Amino acid sequence: MAGSMLASAGAGAQGTTQGRGPTGQYANLKLLVFDTFGTVVDWRTSLIEDLTAYGATRGVTADWPAFADEWRGAYGPSMNRVRKGELPWTKLDALHRMSLDTLLTKYNITQLTEPEKVEFNKVWHRGRPWPDSVPGLTRLKTRFTIAPLSNGNISLLTDMAKHSGIPWDCILGAELVRHYKPDPETYMSPVEFFDLTPPEVMMVAAHPPDLQVPKRLGLRTAYVHRPYEGGTGGAGNAQMPAAGSFDFIVKDMKELATALGV
Amino acid sequence: MAGSMLASAGAGAQGTTQGRGPTGQYANLKLLVFDTFGTVVDWRTSLIEDLTAYGATRGVTADWPAFADEWRGAYGPSMNRVRKGELPWTKLDALHRMSLDTLLTKYNITQLTEPEKVEFNKVWHRGRPWPDSVPGLTRLKTRFTIAPLSNGNISLLTDMAKHSGIPWDCILGAELVRHYKPDPETYMSPVEFFDLTPPEVMMVAAHPPDLQVPKRLGLRTAYVHRPYEGGTGGAGNAQMPAAGSFDFIVKDMKELATALGV
Repeated sequence: MAGSMLASAGAGAQGTTQGRGPTGQYANLKLLVFDTFGTVVDWRTSLIEDLTAYGATRGVTADWPAFADEWRGAYGPSMNRVRKGELPWTKLDALHRMSLDTLLTKYNITQLTEPEKVEFNKVWHRGRPWPDSVPGLTRLKTRFTIAPLSNGNISLLTDMAKHSGIPWDCILGAELVRHYKPDPETYMSPVEFFDLTPPEVMMVAAHPPDLQVPKRLGLRTAYVHRPYEGGTGGAGNAQMPAAGSFDFIVKDMKELATALGV
Repeated sequence: MAGSMLASAGAGAQGTTQGRGPTGQYANLKLLVFDTFGTVVDWRTSLIEDLTAYGATRGVTADWPAFADEWRGAYGPSMNRVRKGELPWTKLDALHRMSLDTLLTKYNITQLTEPEKVEFNKVWHRGRPWPDSVPGLTRLKTRFTIAPLSNGNISLLTDMAKHSGIPWDCILGAELVRHYKPDPETYMSPVEFFDLTPPEVMMVAAHPPDLQVPKRLGLRTAYVHRPYEGGTGGAGNAQMPAAGSFDFIVKDMKELATALGV
């Protein structure tokens, strides 16, 4: 582990020189790819705020935090239906919509027209970054090519970046190879698109399971601690991975930039 | 034709109100996709300058303008081998490299190592924009989602944007659908990725053949006049298309922004 939460941000982490990029075994790092939901954006707070505002405007009452959590909860199982071949390739917007239809019935929200449902589903396109994300990514972009490597579809990620000023150099992700993470095809796609070797690419994520396959494939890995992804009451991401589990373990994107000497 | 070269830039073109976006039949326009080589970047000047500088550094003498033109000339035939199924999907970098190997032999440039050839081939990644491109695209981006729709591969387009500050919202193009323009699959891909209807998308290009298929498919089309793409001695693009051939006929990206009311 070259950098850690214990590294002093001002001094730069081991193996780096502030402002000069990484040195040593990380000197050839060229492309950083990021999980997006939870790692770059605080999807839960965004979703709850947007749904609450929407409900107030339309006179729809619901337990919106519960609604948001159930909607997110449906994502894994629906995506796994694609990964297992039970469904043909289906973009995340369409999976979200299938889950939304089930939830609207469950919550007895019956007054929405089809265009309103299409619009409702786009709440995911407006996920807002954690406060450190844009400043950290802006620094990282000066030295590296930066891109999402998300299960979100291209339009979702593009709209989100445009909405929140996330400065991606390009949009990568599951839709380009029609494989959802953690399929290895998705993690190898940045290597192949950019004609790089695995150690020239680093996967950045807040969820250890999202780093295990790229680590096995030889990519670099960085864990970003996001203990409040599930809300202040959530405990899902509160546990830090063991020291040495990944190349870098940091508390936010600014610390990652410092650890990489930018 | 809603806007034309004859429109006064200051007054805004027919059907638009300066600063308020397009109105009338273009009010629902959401996504602008751009041919890149020739339309956004002056590939020929960039290539000749970079090759000349490279030659001077390495002590390699050649007729670099002729070399550049021959290299570009090989692009169409090599791409058509993929379009016709004679070659499996091959990204543009690899087609450029195949042509480069032939040219290096023809020009008797024999001293390059393999890593030097890889680097030489990346001269295409550094194509520089026409002077109006970045200012015009920056204005267009305030109102529309903007993306290249090029036969160039993702890494080529990403590197070029990063090198020259081209403010794309995302990178689209042939590699995402493994079809080279003018295959209809490539032109329909922005419609499908963004869940839009064809008239909500506009193809922008300096080459009329690059606008014919999208026009037939129902996309909007804008022609940008680039008479010097082939050099000041070139005549290939000097002819203006007939009035009414496309939705917009403009002389540069700033005029396109004005025509679209931004």
